This record gives sequence, C-alpha cells and structure tokens, in this order.
Amino acid sequence: MWIWYRDDFEIYHGMKQNFDRERPGNMLWPAFWKMDSWNTNVVFKKTYNLKEETTFTAYAEGDGYVNAHGRLLPLGEEIKIGPGEVNISVNIGSMETLPALFIEGEVIHTDESWTATNFRENLPVGYSSLYKDKNIKPENIPYMETKYLPGLTKMVNGGHLFDFGCLLNGVPEVICEKAVDLYFGETEAEATDISGCYLYQKNVGKDTKIKRRGFRYIYVPETEGIRVSISAKHQFVPIKVKGRFRSGDELLNRIWSVAEETYKMCSGLFFIDGVKRDRWIWSGDAYQSYFVNPYIFFDEEINKRTIRALRGNKLTDQHLNTIVDYSMYWIMSIENEYTMTGDVDFVASMYDKAEAMMNLLFSQRDKNGFIVKRPGDWIFIDWADMDKDGALSSEQMLFLNCLNVMARLSKLLKKDGRKYVREAKKLKENIDKFFWDEEKGAYINCFESGKRNVTRHPNIFALLYDIASEDKKKTILEKVILSDSVPAITTPYFKFFEMDMLAKYGYLDKVMEEIKSYWGGMLSLGATTFWEEYDPKKQGKEHLSMYGGPYEKSLCHAWSASPIYLIGRYFLGVYPTKAGYETFNVEPKLSYFDSLKCEIPVKDGILYIDYDGEKLEVECDREGGTLVLDGKKTEIPVI
Amino acid sequence: MWIWYRDDFEIYHGMKQNFDRERPGNMLWPAFWKMDSWNTNVVFKKTYNLKEETTFTAYAEGDGYVNAHGRLLPLGEEIKIGPGEVNISVNIGSMETLPALFIEGEVIHTDESWTATNFRENLPVGYSSLYKDKNIKPENIPYMETKYLPGLTKMVNGGHLFDFGCLLNGVPEVICEKAVDLYFGETEAEATDISGCYLYQKNVGKDTKIKRRGFRYIYVPETEGIRVSISAKHQFVPIKVKGRFRSGDELLNRIWSVAEETYKMCSGLFFIDGVKRDRWIWSGDAYQSYFVNPYIFFDEEINKRTIRALRGNKLTDQHLNTIVDYSMYWIMSIENEYTMTGDVDFVASMYDKAEAMMNLLFSQRDKNGFIVKRPGDWIFIDWADMDKDGALSSEQMLFLNCLNVMARLSKLLKKDGRKYVREAKKLKENIDKFFWDEEKGAYINCFESGKRNVTRHPNIFALLYDIASEDKKKTILEKVILSDSVPAITTPYFKFFEMDMLAKYGYLDKVMEEIKSYWGGMLSLGATTFWEEYDPKKQGKEHLSMYGGPYEKSLCHAWSASPIYLIGRYFLGVYPTKAGYETFNVEPKLSYFDSLKCEIPVKDGILYIDYDGEKLEVECDREGGTLVLDGKKTEIPVI
Repeated sequence: MWIWYRDDFEIYHGMKQNFDRERPGNMLWPAFWKMDSWNTNVVFKKTYNLKEETTFTAYAEGDGYVNAHGRLLPLGEEIKIGPGEVNISVNIGSMETLPALFIEGEVIHTDESWTATNFRENLPVGYSSLYKDKNIKPENIPYMETKYLPGLTKMVNGGHLFDFGCLLNGVPEVICEKAVDLYFGETEAEATDISGCYLYQKNVGKDTKIKRRGFRYIYVPETEGIRVSISAKHQFVPIKVKGRFRSGDELLNRIWSVAEETYKMCSGLFFIDGVKRDRWIWSGDAYQSYFVNPYIFFDEEINKRTIRALRGNKLTDQHLNTIVDYSMYWIMSIENEYTMTGDVDFVASMYDKAEAMMNLLFSQRDKNGFIVKRPGDWIFIDWADMDKDGALSSEQMLFLNCLNVMARLSKLLKKDGRKYVREAKKLKENIDKFFWDEEKGAYINCFESGKRNVTRHPNIFALLYDIASEDKKKTILEKVILSDSVPAITTPYFKFFEMDMLAKYGYLDKVMEEIKSYWGGMLSLGATTFWEEYDPKKQGKEHLSMYGGPYEKSLCHAWSASPIYLIGRYFLGVYPTKAGYETFNVEPKLSYFDSLKCEIPVKDGILYIDYDGEKLEVECDREGGTLVLDGKKTEIPVI
Repeated sequence: MWIWYRDDFEIYHGMKQNFDRERPGNMLWPAFWKMDSWNTNVVFKKTYNLKEETTFTAYAEGDGYVNAHGRLLPLGEEIKIGPGEVNISVNIGSMETLPALFIEGEVIHTDESWTATNFRENLPVGYSSLYKDKNIKPENIPYMETKYLPGLTKMVNGGHLFDFGCLLNGVPEVICEKAVDLYFGETEAEATDISGCYLYQKNVGKDTKIKRRGFRYIYVPETEGIRVSISAKHQFVPIKVKGRFRSGDELLNRIWSVAEETYKMCSGLFFIDGVKRDRWIWSGDAYQSYFVNPYIFFDEEINKRTIRALRGNKLTDQHLNTIVDYSMYWIMSIENEYTMTGDVDFVASMYDKAEAMMNLLFSQRDKNGFIVKRPGDWIFIDWADMDKDGALSSEQMLFLNCLNVMARLSKLLKKDGRKYVREAKKLKENIDKFFWDEEKGAYINCFESGKRNVTRHPNIFALLYDIASEDKKKTILEKVILSDSVPAITTPYFKFFEMDMLAKYGYLDKVMEEIKSYWGGMLSLGATTFWEEYDPKKQGKEHLSMYGGPYEKSLCHAWSASPIYLIGRYFLGVYPTKAGYETFNVEPKLSYFDSLKCEIPVKDGILYIDYDGEKLEVECDREGGTLVLDGKKTEIPVI
C-alpha cells in the first residue's frame, strides 16, 4: 500500500478541493483562508527482523533514496537484504505532490506499521484503502466513472439544450465541428440564461480542457446549422450506500431517497458543502454530514479524511475556515467519530492537534474566560440577525461542550484532562452568571451590548449539549423553544441543531411536521436533490437565487440531507449505547409509520427493521443490539 | 515587475535549493529538517485614484481572477477602468509554484507599493530586481550561462578525462554515439576513481536529463573505440564583483583572488555552503558569508534573500537547520544587514519573525534562564570536542548577544524592547555567576557536568560580543586566547570567529600569519578555490577526504572566503561608523603592505585605496568617509 506522513494526503487533496471553486466565467476561486501545506520532505522507517535474505523494491512519489541498514541505494531497484535485524528508511522529497512510498516485497513492504517523520515528529504513517495499488498514485483520486448521454436534447433560442436527467459531478465531452460556448445549470432556467448563468466556459474546442463541474443541463447557444453532441463522464469516489428506508408513507420515502442522492453527490474524498458551489470543505457543514453518515454509508474513512483535511498541521494560529465556531465543531467531531467507530487510535492520532486547537482557543479568552474574536476571526453561529458585540453566549456554549469533550477524550486516552474539567466548571458558572436572564427565562445572546436580546441559538445549544440545569431547561423550552415570540430559526444550517434538540427532548411531532413541510416542500417543486435553502414564500425563479446572484443557490447541498439522520436516529431510533456500536439500541417510534422495511448500517453490520403495521421484526447480522419498545428492552436476534 | 507574498519567493526557492543535495549515485537528498512551504493562496491589493480611464492586464503564476473594483474578470485579458478611486485586487492560488502577479499597464501595474495577504497578514509585497520582465517567471531562476569546452582531454585507464580548467556549477552536454557513464570531480583523482567518486550519473544517453552539479573534471570510462565529446554550461546568478585587491604581496593577492572565486561560486540566489556538497543553505555558514559580502559584492539582495529563505514562515517551532545557535546567528544577521545597508524597512519586515524566534528561544530556558536543548534540537557551536551536558556557555553568550541585538532593533523601530534589555541584564549576571571560573580566569564550557572544562569557544564569544567585563577580558586574553594550554580551534568554521575576535583586539600579526599559513597552505597545494577544511599535517589524497568519504570534502566552501573580510575590515580597515555607511572609516594598517591598489565597495559607492609604499591616497566617489591614520582623522576626498 502507499503510505505517507500522517494527514499529508488529506492536507494535499483538501487544498486541491478548496482550490476547486469557481467564479462565473471559468475563473478559479481559491479558498479565502490560509491553507496549510503538506510536508515536502519525509523519512519513512521500519525495523525488520529477517530470518533469511529477502528482496524489496521501493517506489516513491518524489525523489530520494533508500537507506537499507546503512547502504544508500536508489529507488526503483530491487534490493537484497538480511538475514538479521535491519533498519530500513526511505528519504523522500517532493515539492509537487505529497511524498509517498510504496514498497513491494514478500517480507519487506509498506503497511500501517511503518512510521514517518517530518523531522519534528515521528508518527505512524497515513494510508487509505483507496491506495492499495502501486499504480494508483496518491497525488491522483481514483474516481469511478459513469458515462451519461443526454436523455433529452432540445432547441432553445437557437441553441441546443442537453438534459442529462440528473445532477452530475463530472466532465462533459463535446463533439462539434467548431468551438462552442457551454452554459451549465442545475436547472434549465439557469443553463439557458446566458447572461445570468453561474458556470460557463466559452470557446471550447477539440483540445480545450473542461473543468470538472456540477451540472444537470448544458446549453450551447448559436448552434444553427452545426452539429453538436455532448456526453458526460460523472466521476465519483465509490462509497457504498448501506442504508435503505421504505415506509408506508411515500412522501417520507421520497424525502429519504432525495436526501440520499444529495448526500452521495456531496461525498467525495471529503464532505463538501455543495456540488455546484462552493465545492469547499466547510467544518460546520461537514459537522452535520458526520451525523448522517452512520445511517446511510457507515463509511469511517470519509469522516476521518474530512476531519484530517480540515485541521491541517498541528502548529496553527487560525480557525478552520477562519470561523471560531467551526474549530469547535471540529473538536466535537473527534468524539462523534469515536462514538460511531470506537476507534481509539484515531482519537489518539488527533489528540495533539485537538490540544493545539484548544490552546489557541484558550489564548483568546477575555477576563471572564469567554472566547472572543481576534482580528481576522469570523464568529459565525448562523446567518441570522444577532448581536455580536463582545462575548457571544452561543460561542461559549460550544466552548463548554469542547471542554467536556476534551475531558472525556483525555480520560479515554488516559491523559491528564484535569485542566479541561477545571476550566469547564469555571466556564459553566460564568455562562450562568453573565448570560442567564432570570426574567426572560433564557440565555441572552450577549451582555456587553446591554440589549439582552434572546435568540434561539444559545438556548438550543444549552439544551442540546446539556449545559442548562433541569430547571433552566424547562424554562427555556417554554419561554424560548416553544414560544412564538422568539424569532424562528430560518436557515437550514441551524435548523439541523434545532431539529436535533427538539427530537432529543421528545418533540417528534414537530420534527416530523418540519421534515414533511420543509423537505416535502422542495419535493413539491420538483427537487431531485435538496437545496441550500428553501423558503416556501418564494415563487418560481426566486427559488434559484441566493447571495445576490440569480442562480447562485446550490440545489444540492450536504446539510439538507439531515432527514436521514433525524429519521434514522429518532424515528427508527438507532443509536450506539457504547462507542463503536459495541452495544446499540433500536427504539422505533412506530406511531409515525404504517409500515417499515429498512436496512440501517451499524458498525460491521446491518440492522433489518420490518413492520407491517402490526408486527415488528428487528434483526441484525451481528450481536449487541437491544430493541426498546414501550419501555421494554429485548435483545435483537442475530441472523 | 513580478510581486509575491513577502518571503514566499525565498521560501520556495530555498526549498528547491535545499532539495538539491545529492548522495553518490544520482540520488537526491532532500534536507534533513522540516521545510516551511510557501503560501498557496494569496490576494494582491492596491487602491488607485485614477484621473482618467486606463487599461491594464494581469498575468499570474497560478490560477485566479481579478477583482476590478467589484467586477470579477479573468487574468490575461485587458481591463478598462476609471476614472475615480478604484480598488484592484487579484486572487491567485497555486499548489505548483509560488503565486505571483505581474500587471502591465501605464498607470496600473505591479510595483513595491502593492500589498498581499495570505488571509492572516496583509503585508507589503516581495519583489526582486531579477524579476522585472514578464517573461522571467518567479518559479525559474534567470541564470546567466557560459559555455565551457574542456581545455584538456586525456585518456586515463581506457576512458576519457575532460578537464574544464576551473570549477563549474552547471550542466554538461554530452555528444556520444552510445550511452555513457559520467564521473564528476573537483579533482582528477576524484573523477577517475570510479569506485570512490562522490558524484556520478550512469547510462547517460541522448535524452537523459543531467543534474546541475559542481565539478571541474568529468571522467567517462570505457571509451575505447567510441567518440565522445563533452561541453558544459556554467550557470550563475549575475552578481557584480566590486572589490579589487592588489598589494605588493603576491601571496596575499592570490589568497584574495582565490577567496573571491570561492565566494562567487557559493553565491547564487542564496549563500550555499559548498558547490559540490552540501549545496544547502546553512544559517551558520551564511552568517559568515554576510561579513564577506560588503568587501566584494556589496550585494544587498543576496543577503536578504538568504535571511528570508532561512527563516521561513513566522509561525515556527523549530530552529534553523535544527540548530539552536544557527537561529541565533540568524537574529544577529538582521542587524548585520542593517549595519551594511541602513535599510530600516528590511529590519521592520523581519521584526515579527525575529520576535517569534526569540519567543521560541524564551520557551526553552531552564530555571536559570539558560537556553537548553529540546528533543530534536542540535546544539552545535563547533565540531570540536566539548562537553554538551545541560546549559552550554557558548550558547548563552550568543543568546545574550541576541537579546542585545533585539533591544537595539526594537529601539530602531520605536518598538518596546524593554523585555530584551531586562532579560539581557539577568542573563549577563547568571552567565558570570554560573560560568565564570575565577581560578581558571575563563568561562567554562558547562557547569552541570561538574568538569569545569575550558574551551576557547565561549571565551571568544565573550570578547567578540563584549560580554565580559574589561577585567575579565584581560584575563581571558592571557589565560585562554594567548595560552597554548587551551586546545586550539581546529575548524575553519570557528576559526572565523577566532580571527574576527583577534583582529578586533588588535592581534593583527597573528591574523596575518594565519591567513598566510592556512590559506597560503592550500594555495601551495594547488587550490583554485578554498576548501571546507585544511590540515597541513595531511598528505596527498588525504586532503580530499572528509566525513568518512574519500572525496566527500568540498573543495570550494563559502566559509573559507573569509580572508576577504579580514583583509577588508581590519587590514584595509574599511567599516561603517553609521548604519548603511552614512559615515564610514578607512583605517589602513600600512605596515602590513609594501603597496596597495584596491577598490572596496561601500554602500552606493567605491572607495579607492592607493599606496606606493610612501604615499597613501584614499578617495571615494561619495561622501561620508574618514581616513584614520596614526590616530589622525581626515575627510576622504570625493572624486
């Protein structure tokens, strides 16, 4: 297998991904935050105890040499060595791509037991199941390709409109006797509006390199009298869909399946936000994707790749995507991944970087111990209107949760986490002291502005992360969450946290109603993937506009796939009770379904849920499951 | 002109340079320390106040777009804008090379007044006089080339030996009807010893890319019956030699001229240590090169490029080349550059990085405030045998000098440097308390080993950097420096500090004697460039070996060019008395010369020193000079 300095693969390809965004007019838009770079010089090492002489050949991405127990030898040539204890090390430098090593040999070959040093730290190597073949170089992505022919071609305003029938992420192949202009669209309206279209590439001839893009339609104007045909290669990283959901409710079934399509499209090497736009890896967006994953892919690697890519190098002075809250979701995501996979090694591999990020957060506290903005930091939380003067309560709620997460992760790794416990206690006291408003029965947004505004955000976090006391929780539910007097959450991004919290506190009717109206609303408008945002009050082409552009809205956006999580976690009620699903519960809420025929992945297994309206059958191909129904617990039979 | 994010050019090419070392057998040996990477995404910015409409075209290394006051437009196309105040910014991303920008236009064009941000800091851009032409891309080095034909070709052991007459740094061109093996050498012995030769490349055919190397000889074995001819392109960065030295002493003249050749060969984009080996940028080696520069090139840019390349990015947790003392020479070099050039802007541009380096040093102090080794750090000082347990006095002397340098640089920039003054005072006290041995009349090497060994190193520093009190200085001179009982300095590297100190304290006889015997000794063995090391006790081919290899010694090594500095600074006595040679002294020691006919550069000028054994004429093409002779000061006339 190919091996590399841990996290370098993700840093390298993460940078490529974040340089993949486009401005209208075939102009590349590299990310607007500082990108960490991979290590350009690395030494790979392993000691072998050889019973007899053996041979091996080292192949590399980059230049360098093999040190075969003191003999310095070239790459690419067979080396004889042994018997006895031998140290093998390989020095590789590469400015063009990540230094990587592949050793072929019966006894001596690259595997996960090698280490690599960047001359600062010697660490277990990074590797991936995608790069087991010598010819699949780590600088490239081994996409699977499906060729699509347009299902429908029609003439519009003197040009050809090609409809591929579904959203693709790939590269068109154009056959035409002269150079043509290509206008891409998620919708017909977008592709055919050549003055407003978001993605286009002009003067495409026989040898023009066409960028990989997200599109369903391609419009070629001014084609009268010429022949033009277009096919398209859809490129994707193969990740198996394991979750299946069928119920008696056809709307719910369609919501699941369109969410699945949305989620698949936004899952490549990494979780990106959207296929047409931004194509960037945003920590806040990815955080929501981690929740969906166990119910549909149960793919452990995409989570890890995304977590590694987002964080970059240990030494840092910036927040992920420049956003302070996004750094905190990143810390929380490590525990999420552990809960899903039980992979302690992964937690150990991220711990130093999590600690370095906590130190950055510690360094920007004010006199009350609250996280505040440094110059260049973005305090986001949500696009909603809110007072952002000084310390923001939502930010402190996330920080308190991070402290609790770090305390638990430290304990897991048997490291000293007393600092986190101590700081969490102090912060909790100060949150209550400075942000709790007894009269309003809520946490206010910030106290330094003097306005004492209440928004839902900090109160949702206070419930979701169990920060508020039981008394306060009750008050918050009544005076904020269930009250119409506090402005509603309007962004689908924050709706995720709201729905998760509502479901956690048992308000499943409200959640189901929202799933059917919000996501069902998009379906009723013909959505084949779920959108970045949906406002039922808008009409026609208004639905396509965002950020001031007529077609700037992404119509396939990862965070809109959350019904899969909400249904899987709360309505089918599948969740681990010990990390890595060593034990897990299935707690289906049958009152919401006429019937069910579902397959939901668990770690190393599949869970089958069958319900015909009367009889419920739950089975699994592995042990550890408990069915919880009407408060009664029974062991789930193994098939 | 091309512009880039400040220091990125040097970081990019510094990495290329440090990946240019070779192991015998055409194997690349990337540097064995962590290399910082350039910023891969950058935004360039400038605001113009346009009287009328104007046009410009932006060219880039990398991909991106132009934001012309809100209009997003492609690179490479002419843009019309104005009149009025307009903000121009250009976003560029490049993983392959440093992002760089060149704007052509009458009013709007790139120059040093632009700024660039890496999304963490917005800084004045970097630029270079080498990259004023649009077609000279910053990713390439605009080498001048001279073609050399071998002066002599002879048959040796059935092969051809080509002698180019002098050391070259370049690429051979081979014409031969079949593929041949090339063995390179600084000497004939090396080239023709095909089992011990350091640099060789086998199986070189018509299309084989040959690496750029340092060599004088090329040997091609087994050429009987075939025709082979070789020429070579010597490649160099054009830097003008301004210093000329002629005296009545032919030996001294030859020492100067061979030192000049040595120095020229080791000066490219950066000061490297040697041409054959290592071809790396070592901070300690470069530090000595900075002293020679004003007496021969007075090239301000090569110093700055080297200083920038060595340091890398602001955020750091490692010492330069992993060596703690090398980080400290780097800090000192900023003041050196200021003394030479008077360039306050340069000091300002390096101050943050110097401060970050000081913070790293502060972070690794022991309870007495002494710098100690962290894991992975290399405490070097010299190859000489010395006790390195715990805090080393030499290291503390350098650190104290750094504190004093930082205090002065802070004052120069009107920044608060009180911390440095305070820490310097404390450190000075502790150095005397822990390392001064009254009985030995010397600073001991370290106290933690309990051995109380005395070496010359810390005592040389104590004198050179004026750390010891006047009383202690006297004792040190007597009991250490001029005493035969303390082991002599044996490495040419540390001999530089010893000679500088001896000359500073007036021991010019000793210095002249050493110049003539040590450097003269190499000349008597036929040296055409000065060697990495010279031991008169060695015989024949013994002179070529080092580090355990028969030909591993570099025979053209930058640090051996120091006679130029010693002669220029102390015997011709040219030195600035105000930064940037605003005023300068010429204090020639005529007793060492029968005659002199010299041209020595000063900032923006040339100084002429003419002495026929009786009459001394000193003139300059600019003002500010003072002739100091027998304690008498006279203004140097301007011609």
